[in-house]
Amino acid sequence: MSCFVRERHIRFADCDPAGIVFYPQYFVMFNGLVEDWIEQRLGIPYRELVLGRRIGLPTVRLEADFKAVSVLRDAVALSLRVERLGQRSLTLQLRCTGPADDVRMSLRQVIVTTSLATHQSIDIPDDLRIGIDRFVAATH
Amino acid sequence: MSCFVRERHIRFADCDPAGIVFYPQYFVMFNGLVEDWIEQRLGIPYRELVLGRRIGLPTVRLEADFKAVSVLRDAVALSLRVERLGQRSLTLQLRCTGPADDVRMSLRQVIVTTSLATHQSIDIPDDLRIGIDRFVAATH
Amino acid sequence: MSCFVRERHIRFADCDPAGIVFYPQYFVMFNGLVEDWIEQRLGIPYRELVLGRRIGLPTVRLEADFKAVSVLRDAVALSLRVERLGQRSLTLQLRCTGPADDVRMSLRQVIVTTSLATHQSIDIPDDLRIGIDRFVAATH
Amino acid sequence: MSCFVRERHIRFADCDPAGIVFYPQYFVMFNGLVEDWIEQRLGIPYRELVLGRRIGLPTVRLEADFKAVSVLRDAVALSLRVERLGQRSLTLQLRCTGPADDVRMSLRQVIVTTSLATHQSIDIPDDLRIGIDRFVAATH
Repeated sequence: MSCFVRERHIRFADCDPAGIVFYPQYFVMFNGLVEDWIEQRLGIPYRELVLGRRIGLPTVRLEADFKAVSVLRDAVALSLRVERLGQRSLTLQLRCTGPADDVRMSLRQVIVTTSLATHQSIDIPDDLRIGIDRFVAATH
Repeated sequence: MSCFVRERHIRFADCDPAGIVFYPQYFVMFNGLVEDWIEQRLGIPYRELVLGRRIGLPTVRLEADFKAVSVLRDAVALSLRVERLGQRSLTLQLRCTGPADDVRMSLRQVIVTTSLATHQSIDIPDDLRIGIDRFVAATH
Repeated sequence: MSCFVRERHIRFADCDPAGIVFYPQYFVMFNGLVEDWIEQRLGIPYRELVLGRRIGLPTVRLEADFKAVSVLRDAVALSLRVERLGQRSLTLQLRCTGPADDVRMSLRQVIVTTSLATHQSIDIPDDLRIGIDRFVAATH
Repeated sequence: MSCFVRERHIRFADCDPAGIVFYPQYFVMFNGLVEDWIEQRLGIPYRELVLGRRIGLPTVRLEADFKAVSVLRDAVALSLRVERLGQRSLTLQLRCTGPADDVRMSLRQVIVTTSLATHQSIDIPDDLRIGIDRFVAATH
């Protein structure tokens, strides 16, 4: 089973007075990963999705485990797998690993699709569903 | 049962292009709440704790549920309760509620005490433990 | 001459691996100060201004001098003065000072009013202009 | 004359309720650019510089002009030129441009080298000075 992966360096701006990643920054990094996954892998223009079609992707539930620290300039890999695709929700497994493939942090995140006009949940749009189905098929 | 509470407004800087709180900002807000709780309620100088005594308070586990959106300038209350005090860890229940006491987001967070020299866990320092014990006694 | 002032503590989340304020955070703090000034002092509901009337307040120019560091938990004062009120722009003088009234950072910021539909500049709305005029009169 | 350039996309996390870059985020982006320039172009290990040698690179002065907005998912280029290299300070010219090489934002930033033990200015370390000299020679 494969997954969607992006690498990056831990930056000064990600770190706290302890010299390690300030934990909310992991969520900012993963938010960018989901954005890249939707646009670059699923082929859905993200800006059009959010600003044009006014579809939101808020998180409704997350569980995170922080297993080891990431330090300034560490080269980390952020990876994404789909755990479950529902009618209106999507469950992702996200991980941040270090150079030795050691897990720094893992996250299970449930996202729903909403109308940004009403903030009410809506069915996952067809193009997004088709893209996710293909990704799941290709990565299992 | 009482708890430690601080109120604040949702700011422009907290919000995303959907006009609602960008969810990692909740963790930034709660990080500030824990900081205020330690300093203002437990009576432990926070700067001395982190920069002087070099004691870290990293999060090792969190579970969060996002139930309703918070919008720009909403007046919200952030509250903290202690669920469990262990030898080297502390489990907190945190909530963000709106003006009608409606829950926007709730968080269960496990924090450990570490040495910032080694990033290894250490026993919760005595002054912190005594402060937390008193807080728990006063709020149950 | 008086001004609009708010006090706050420097938080863990504001600080970088050097244990001092990460300088972009000053701009986040001042953004909140301008927000509070408009709402609490000028009496203009900020959320209605931005989300309802769709009026933006982007910065077009700023000059900042950083004179001394601010450290974790420092109690600082953020202050705002109006330097100039134009047809479509507003020039502010902002300062962050420490407990001994020592200047940590000062900022001259030019803001314009825009339509958030077009991102083009518009005349400063009447209620905002009247509020600013009164503030200037009261603080000179 | 050439310069150091990195491209990136504007992310959801960079944007505000107006759907455009929240201006303090430009400074976060440029902070990352300077970090990459020092490490990847000047060949100075950045983590060792900051956490090992305890050398700080605080900003003492900046002047910024915001000329056009950047929107979610815009592909922008961040560029860096050296304007002046002093004994203890470095003046940079930084720019964010859009796909048509249109300037979104430009920044003149004066950085000093400091000891992170004392937060006092120190002479620019030799390896950093040599690297900058070479960069200036190569880009003029």
